[in-house]
Amino acid sequence: MTIQDNFRTAMRNYIYSVSVMSMKGADGNPYAITVSSVTSISMEPPSLLVCINKSARVHDSIKEGSDLCINLLTKDQEEISNTCSSESQFDKRFDDKNWNMQNIPYLENAQANIFCKVDKLISYHTHSIVIAHVLDASSKESMNTLVYANGKYA
Amino acid sequence: MTIQDNFRTAMRNYIYSVSVMSMKGADGNPYAITVSSVTSISMEPPSLLVCINKSARVHDSIKEGSDLCINLLTKDQEEISNTCSSESQFDKRFDDKNWNMQNIPYLENAQANIFCKVDKLISYHTHSIVIAHVLDASSKESMNTLVYANGKYA
Repeated sequence: MTIQDNFRTAMRNYIYSVSVMSMKGADGNPYAITVSSVTSISMEPPSLLVCINKSARVHDSIKEGSDLCINLLTKDQEEISNTCSSESQFDKRFDDKNWNMQNIPYLENAQANIFCKVDKLISYHTHSIVIAHVLDASSKESMNTLVYANGKYA
Repeated sequence: MTIQDNFRTAMRNYIYSVSVMSMKGADGNPYAITVSSVTSISMEPPSLLVCINKSARVHDSIKEGSDLCINLLTKDQEEISNTCSSESQFDKRFDDKNWNMQNIPYLENAQANIFCKVDKLISYHTHSIVIAHVLDASSKESMNTLVYANGKYA
């Protein structure tokens, strides 16, 4: 067993909530990618971070000043989680009728929507750590958050 | 409702795993603090991040090169989660008999232990983002991870 194997196995014990990050790219195209690494940083200023693999198609569209939305998914949104984490389904990302595409793309039926503006990008080997200011947020009354652990939805 | 209120409410919909970060400080004293923000970054190199409030007593002991352990808690460890998140119980942090204090302090009965060396500290307003290389990790066979959501253990 390598360190990587042991680390991966340890991380499988973490239970986490599933989100989709969505944005309009500098190229004018909409992007959406499933992310598990959303972490609030501070309340002053309201801010969060998310880690994005440099090989993800959305990566090079993320700049300081970019607007994006973190859509926390509900248990009814496994399918969109799968679609937005699959390279082969890239063209189907916005098929779901609950996307609001008027400005920054966001999922109207998400558990929560957190609208952000990218403040800083920190390059770290294979990934970028995206630090964003929260501009606005909304959430549904009853909690039905999609959760992933040990390689499956739970 | 302020942006902060809306952001806080949205974040209460996130379900997350509870960990305790432990280390021996530069002053020779052991520290332990409950953290909710452990996020794996990359496998090459194996690395993770955690956000630490600058007002936390442990904060100034965290330097590049510091050794620390991320102890993912089990459902049986609510008490140590409470102790390590309470300023008033600071002196009781290491009362639990499951602490191994020989070198880097770690909880022998944790769900997982991830041993790390701090690689980078990134200051961001009230918090520091601590990026650490994973040196080794171990985990228990059966999964019984302590989870927090909507202001309570779940």
